[in-house]
Amino acid sequence: MAELSDYTVTPIGLVHCPIRNPAEAPKNYSESGETGTLEIFPEYRDGLAGIEAGQTIVVLFWLHRARRDLLKVHPRGDRSRGLQGVFSLRSPMRPNPIALSELEVLAIRDMVLEVRGLDMIDGTPILDIKRKISE
Amino acid sequence: MAELSDYTVTPIGLVHCPIRNPAEAPKNYSESGETGTLEIFPEYRDGLAGIEAGQTIVVLFWLHRARRDLLKVHPRGDRSRGLQGVFSLRSPMRPNPIALSELEVLAIRDMVLEVRGLDMIDGTPILDIKRKISE
Repeated sequence: MAELSDYTVTPIGLVHCPIRNPAEAPKNYSESGETGTLEIFPEYRDGLAGIEAGQTIVVLFWLHRARRDLLKVHPRGDRSRGLQGVFSLRSPMRPNPIALSELEVLAIRDMVLEVRGLDMIDGTPILDIKRKISE
Repeated sequence: MAELSDYTVTPIGLVHCPIRNPAEAPKNYSESGETGTLEIFPEYRDGLAGIEAGQTIVVLFWLHRARRDLLKVHPRGDRSRGLQGVFSLRSPMRPNPIALSELEVLAIRDMVLEVRGLDMIDGTPILDIKRKISE
């Protein structure tokens, strides 16, 4: 029946990139050419087997500085656009502030993935990496 | 600096669909024509404003029955294929068992979204809904 409990997520790594402030971040990965690295923690090493330079990966992040108490926001922070539900947007503000970016893998050095397309601030926790499904 | 704490996620709703057993589920949304409903809990009503029939939405689910302790698995459970890292696959088994599906909205009735493309079992908790970014 209904599964109504909360669940705990544990970061598997951290982003390192030049973006220090949410206001400076690109609005989403498709508008970003920003490069940086994904540092994966040593205990998750085996999970990376099969990732190669040149691939596009889907990465889930925990937006640790986003508000979780807003259900309507102005799209892209543009107050001229009126309020819209967060589930119809890509706003970082949402009850479970998990972000999803598609990133290009430029290189892998041990537990560090060099990537392009970052749209979050330095130090953002990584929750998961997945293969991209080709359309 | 490093953000190493755990975080808590709270389901915003539940899936209702005919799939009762993980073994029966399509391997991913792009291989599924399965229809069902997303029941969003009343306290999240405002977040749905802007979602309309005909849209494709990105939905994050918590795979409450998936193992979290495996870092390598056989792709699609096919033992002839050898072990591969879960971060290079779409396996439900991963340290943070969050699934991502792109679903077509067929209809909305109050807090219930009728959708197509389901690849998870009945009763799976929903964590988030996002606009799809057009490529």
